Order: sequence, then C-alpha cells, then structure tokens
Amino acid sequence: MYDLTIALRTDSEKCLYEQIYEYIRQEIREGKLRPGERLPSTRSLAEYLQISRSTAALAYEQLVSEGYIESRPYRGYYVCRMEELYRLDTGEEDGDADTAQTSGKRPQYRCDFSPTATDMSQFPFGVWRKINKNVLSESSSGLFAQGDSQGEYSLRETISRYLHSSRGVNCSPQQIIVGAGNDYLLLLLEKILGRHVKIAMENPTYKRAYQIFNSFAYEITTVDMDSAGMSVSGLRSSDVTAAYVMPSHQYPTGVLMPIGRRLELLKWADEAPDRYLIEDDYDSEFRYKGKPIPSLQASDKHGRVIYIGTFSKSIAPAIRVSYMVLPQALLERYRRQCAFYSTTVSRIDQKVLEEFIREGYFERYLNKMRKYYKEKHDLLLEELADFGEAFQITGENAGLHLLLTGKRGQTEEELLTAAEAVGVKVYGLSESLVEKDSGESLRQPGGTVILGYGGLGQEDIKNGLSLLRQAWL
Amino acid sequence: MYDLTIALRTDSEKCLYEQIYEYIRQEIREGKLRPGERLPSTRSLAEYLQISRSTAALAYEQLVSEGYIESRPYRGYYVCRMEELYRLDTGEEDGDADTAQTSGKRPQYRCDFSPTATDMSQFPFGVWRKINKNVLSESSSGLFAQGDSQGEYSLRETISRYLHSSRGVNCSPQQIIVGAGNDYLLLLLEKILGRHVKIAMENPTYKRAYQIFNSFAYEITTVDMDSAGMSVSGLRSSDVTAAYVMPSHQYPTGVLMPIGRRLELLKWADEAPDRYLIEDDYDSEFRYKGKPIPSLQASDKHGRVIYIGTFSKSIAPAIRVSYMVLPQALLERYRRQCAFYSTTVSRIDQKVLEEFIREGYFERYLNKMRKYYKEKHDLLLEELADFGEAFQITGENAGLHLLLTGKRGQTEEELLTAAEAVGVKVYGLSESLVEKDSGESLRQPGGTVILGYGGLGQEDIKNGLSLLRQAWL
Repeated sequence: MYDLTIALRTDSEKCLYEQIYEYIRQEIREGKLRPGERLPSTRSLAEYLQISRSTAALAYEQLVSEGYIESRPYRGYYVCRMEELYRLDTGEEDGDADTAQTSGKRPQYRCDFSPTATDMSQFPFGVWRKINKNVLSESSSGLFAQGDSQGEYSLRETISRYLHSSRGVNCSPQQIIVGAGNDYLLLLLEKILGRHVKIAMENPTYKRAYQIFNSFAYEITTVDMDSAGMSVSGLRSSDVTAAYVMPSHQYPTGVLMPIGRRLELLKWADEAPDRYLIEDDYDSEFRYKGKPIPSLQASDKHGRVIYIGTFSKSIAPAIRVSYMVLPQALLERYRRQCAFYSTTVSRIDQKVLEEFIREGYFERYLNKMRKYYKEKHDLLLEELADFGEAFQITGENAGLHLLLTGKRGQTEEELLTAAEAVGVKVYGLSESLVEKDSGESLRQPGGTVILGYGGLGQEDIKNGLSLLRQAWL
Repeated sequence: MYDLTIALRTDSEKCLYEQIYEYIRQEIREGKLRPGERLPSTRSLAEYLQISRSTAALAYEQLVSEGYIESRPYRGYYVCRMEELYRLDTGEEDGDADTAQTSGKRPQYRCDFSPTATDMSQFPFGVWRKINKNVLSESSSGLFAQGDSQGEYSLRETISRYLHSSRGVNCSPQQIIVGAGNDYLLLLLEKILGRHVKIAMENPTYKRAYQIFNSFAYEITTVDMDSAGMSVSGLRSSDVTAAYVMPSHQYPTGVLMPIGRRLELLKWADEAPDRYLIEDDYDSEFRYKGKPIPSLQASDKHGRVIYIGTFSKSIAPAIRVSYMVLPQALLERYRRQCAFYSTTVSRIDQKVLEEFIREGYFERYLNKMRKYYKEKHDLLLEELADFGEAFQITGENAGLHLLLTGKRGQTEEELLTAAEAVGVKVYGLSESLVEKDSGESLRQPGGTVILGYGGLGQEDIKNGLSLLRQAWL
C-alpha cells in the first residue's frame, strides 16, 4: 500500500480535504501512484494524518467523482486504470503568442472619412437610461426569462408598424424575425434557404455580405450594374436562384434603383419557383431629397422578397438588433426547420427598444438625425464645389457617404496615397470589388474614392477637404 | 398630354406635393398613365392646380427618384417604360393566416418538472439595475459604438479568470469568443470547422444541439454510452472527426465522465490531425457533492477541446451571453475566415455582465443558488425515498434534473400518461433519443423519465411528488 506523506498546512487557504485531494491527484497524474494500486482506508489515512475520518472520506469522494480512484465494495479504494495516463504530464501549456489586444496599431489620421461611422452626439442618452430603468423596475423577473425565438411579439408588432409607415413594407408581426445583427440573420437565412443556393451580387457590393455568403456553401455570381442597379439581363444569363440587392442606396455606389428595374427584378424572381431577392435596406432612413423611397418589398406581391433592416445604423452600432421579414413560404420553412434556434437578443433589450419606438423617441431621433446628417451632406457638397473640375460626384442625397471619381486620369491608388500623405483617410472603391482584378482596378485611370461623413463634425469636414484640396488639386 | 384631375385637399395631413406625387404614382400603377406618356410641365401643372411651381417640381422630383417618370432635357417629363407594370395591381396582399401569437395553447399543469426551468427568485435585481444605471451613465457615447467581433477584451479577461478558477480551463482572453447564446456560437463554429465534419454525439443527447448539427451539413453518428459516458471504442469504429460531449453532467443522463474516459477521448482526438472535442459545459456550476468537477478542457494539453459555456443558465435565460474557448489552431482559422462576423452582444450588456462578475456578485449569486438548488435537490431525493422500491434514481448530485427509471416494467409512455392524468408534467427520456426508434423505446418496459426541479418551489416539489405517488405507486 502506498505511503502518503502529505504535508498538510493549516495556514493554507485551502481546506484540509482539498489539500489531500490535490496531493493524491498530483501523485496519480505524475505516475507515482500507479493504476490498480490500493490507497489507505479512510480510517488509516485519518489516523496517519491526524484528521477526521469524514475529511479523508470527502477527499476520496472527490477523487472518485472525477474518476481518479474507485471504491471496490469491501476492499477499499484503488487508483483507476487509465489508458491515457501519459497525457497527464505536468508541462505547462505554451504561452499565448499574443501579448495584448488582438488588433494591431493603426496609423493616426487627421481626418477619417469612414463610410461606416455614425454620429452619436445627438443620441438621447437620458431617455435611453430612463427607459432602461423603467423596464428593469417593472416586472423584472419575467423579463429575465427566455423569450420567443423570433423575438418578442410586441416588439415585432412595433417593427411591423414602423416598417409599414416608413418603408411601405407589407408584413405581419408573424413574418418578422428579430436577431442580433444582420450577420446573424444571414447565418439563419442560410439554414432557411438551404445550402445549395446560387446567389447574384452586384459588383462592387457590400463586402461583408460577400464575405458572409462566401463563408456559406453559396455559389456567388457577380452581376454588372448600370445606372439603375443590378443588370437584369446579366441576372438572366446566370443560373442563380437568389439576388442580394440594396435598392434604396446601393453600397458603395449609392445608386437608387428606379421602380422599373425593381419590377424587372421581381418579374425575374416570379418566373421560377424558389427564387428570392434579398433586400438589404441598411441606411434607407437617411434620404435628404424628397420623401424616403419605399422598399422593394413594398412592390412585391408574390412573396419573393426577403427584407433585412437594422437599428445599428439608425440608433447605435452597439444596439445589436436587426430584423428580417420572411415571405410566407420561407416563414413556414423557418418554423419547420429553424424555430429551435433560440433568440439572440435579450428580452430586456427588446423591451427597451420597443418602448423607445412606441413612445415616439425613435421617430423624433430619426428626424433630428436626418436633418443633422443633411447639414453635413450639404456642407460636404458645398465644400466640394471647387473640386468640380477634377472630380465627378455620385451617390449623394442619401445615406452617409458619397463617391468622387477623378476626371484627370488619376488612379485610385494615386488618390489614396496622396490623401494619406496629408493625413486624410478616404476609401477606395476597389475595396468593395469582389472580382479578382481589384488590384488592377486600383491602378486604372479614373479612380473612385468613397467619402463617408456620418462620423465627422462640420469642422472635420472642412479641414479634411482643405487637406484633400492640397493633395489632389 | 394627360389631363391631371387631382382633388387636392388642404385639410389633409399630407402636404400638397405628397398628394400630387401619390396621385400620379397611382395613375401610373393602375396603367391610366401609360409608359412614354408625357406629363404636363411643372409650370402648367402649377397653374392648373393653383399651386406653386416648386411644389409641382418637388412632386416630379420624387417620382423621378423612384423611377416612375423621367426628365428628358428640353422636352419635359415622361412616364418611364416599365416592363413589369403588370405587377402594379392594386390587389391587397393575402391576410396572414395566423391571428395571434405563434405558439399554440398548452395544457395547464399543476406541477411541471421542466428540466430547463431555472429559478430567478433569488436574483439580485437591485444590483443588476444599479450596475446597469452606472454603466449607462459613465462614458455612454463610447459604449454605443460597435465593439470587438470576439467580444470586449475586458469581459474576455474576466471570463478567462473565472473559467480558470472555477472550471480549471486554461485559456487566454484571446482564445475566447463571446456570442449571443450557444446556438449562435455553434453556427459560428460551423464556419470555423468547415462544412465537411462528421460528428459523434451520445445517444440520448441534448436534442437542440442535435437539431443544430443536423441543420448543418454535418454527418451525425450516434455513439453508445456506458456508465462513464461516450464509448471510445464506439467512437473509434466510426470515422468521425469531432465529438460533442457534456463531461460534467451529461444531458439527459446526468453521467459524470471520469478522468480515465476523458483521457481516452483526448487520446482519440490526438491520433489524427483536425480532430476536436466539443465540450458543452452547460450546468457545471451546480454540483452538490464535493468540489466542482474540472472541465475536460482542463486536461487538454494539445489543443483538442472546444469549450462552450453560458451565462443563460447561471445568471438568467434572458442574458444572451455565451462563450466559446477555441484552441490555438482554430483561433487562427477563426481570425482568417470569420473575424468579419460582427459581435452579437451589445457593448452595454457586456459591460454590465463584466461588472457583475468583477464586483463579486456573480460568485456570491452562484454560491447562493448552489445552496438553494441543493435544498430543492435534497428535498426531491428525500421525498423520492418511498419511490425506491419501484424506481431507480440516477443523474443526481448535480445540475437541475435527475432521472427515474421504472423497476416494475412500466413503459415510459405509461409513466408519462399516468403523470399527465394527475396534472403533472414529467419528461420522457426518449425525447432526447436521436435515433429513429424513439417511438419503440417509448413503449419498452423499464421506461425512464426526467424530473427537473430548478424552477419549482419546495411546496411544488412536495405536491408534485405526492401526485406522482398516486399516479405511479
């Protein structure tokens, strides 16, 4: 029988049974106690170590629970036979190569025309805090329970009313699925549509959506754009079953798809069963000329459009709430195949958002931001007036970015390098190209860059453009 | 030229330009204004309707934006040619068949031994509210920005410390991915592991995980269990590349996998490149005998275990925060292939959770709940004492459920039916079977039912068991 020489410490933070348990476990792991070897009885261990028998029993019980030792009736405790004992070396795991945060250092810019930045300076933090507080005080316990897979019904009702009045979307709350961001909803959509989808995307397009579809088994076909958006003849010449479009303000080109093209797309979708249009309505809230353009879904009479929108752009990027409107046929498929996926948004967050919309704060905030962003947009256009000779402006009047195309033969690369030299970050259109020749496009004359203004103040815009004037003109 | 007889209403909520815009749009949609037809000039429309010319221009601009009409230089406005005009009928969409909430009526039970229910009565709502308030007051604007794809670094640091001290998990914050629930993390894992995975699951197993893997392209093999968990010889005789296990407290059987079996599993994973063990540590916080059992990941020295845990069980179902610890090789693959997927948890929620853990509230709450659930567990066992002749109890001492197996030849179906007759809901083991013969198993003698006690009060447990005594004994 093994002789246990355990140095018990009464001044240790660990209680006695833990010390015994850990000692024996270590002896087994290091092979000093061999499989099949018998351990002292709890009585003799207790006597030997001058501890109570129940302490010894507790240590053994823990070792039994974890499978290090076993109790054989009327015979005592034995070390278990473990085929893989070789693994229980004491070597430490390799240290992690990373020493700090994952993201590397980025150069500091004097002005960053980021097309994804938004402005939170006007956000009613006080209101949000107040609603949060109210929601958490009322009937808290129920709110902490797990909610409906599709999202809370009352939030979906609120969203369906909002979508109908502001985007012309025709849908019942039953058709809406609330999820933590567009990326998640696309992951879910993959499970609804199935694995064998051939999808058409415009080129250039929203790169993240491309990366996501690419990480699916989807076969992606890029279809050329003209001034009205995705070319339907291009679509017809491919054998795709779905098309991803942003009809209200295409990213990055800013093209607004006219009703004629929308109807052609819908007709294409109608011509064969199981064809769908995925409408990403990402920044439709911000239009600075006339009324907002109704969604593509609003013209869809035969259930061909999957509509996706988000509050990340219209409220705050941290609000991880997006929504997907499914046509009836896909809704049935979702219920059959995917309804077991739990919701990704907490009930509390859903309730806060619902109150924010229902009490009219969302609409007021949107109106304020539309005006606020329009001021930035107008200032940008005004300041760009003297670029007019050298650059063509497109994609304006909506969203949070516009495009400048060089008229004097500059390549995109030259524009980017010159901007960088004066400390200004602008974004190349070729970043959004998904064909393999984006490097080539970077070096072609007539380069195009994207200027986002959502996150910049008026002074930033003025300074940034004054620097760009030095760089480019 | 078309004669526009628009009945303008000055008492309408809609401004004049909108009324004109809508009227013309309707005329086009109904085919009364034909493609190619010329519209009156803004001047003549303004004169005719007695409105300002800029109002007329605004209406036309909106119609141009949406692609209904076009402006031909020096010639005027024309209705666009739209191939698909036929679609623009005015027929209303079919009403949704559903009239109310999606979930149907469920029978009311006098007592529901749900294995997934948890008890929120002891949750420190006041503390949660306070932390929420503090987090929202401090530097709010930054918190509303989009966060790190993997989750906030400081939360991941906090989680890694917690996992190390309570579950023996060895990981750096860099290896952790925070996501909105286990289901989401599994969706992400599919993208990391790739599409062609053959996965082994125990049988019976956690049904939702089965459904999720089934919705992937994964080929699922069920491997038999013995009293130590997944059979490694069963695993070896299949050609799977991954295995999904719950070593701390298997669902539904409650089996605790001993260290020997764990090491065998790790050895199996080591024997070929790209083999992984997915450890779902779903309710490891609740163990009522001895110390908590360390995780499988704690014994993994060669980066073979993907560890998944959740706060939905240990804090509240509404807290949609789970975490996945990736071994180094998969972390690199994640960074290369999936880092563009945005985080699914808001920064605010992450911050609140981090504070809750860092300030020690989480540990205190866990200790309290462990004691509280243990009382329920002990009461249940006590009350089950007189079932001992007729039922065998297994899976006790941990988690929030245990199993009863009939010793008198009753089938599962008989047990369920008899319980239902007295208004008590218990859960059949066959629900967790993933083979096709679960119906058969339902009708075999020696049926097993699952009794969850997490959501029940002491009185409920007593009453429920007294009813079951009537039904079964």
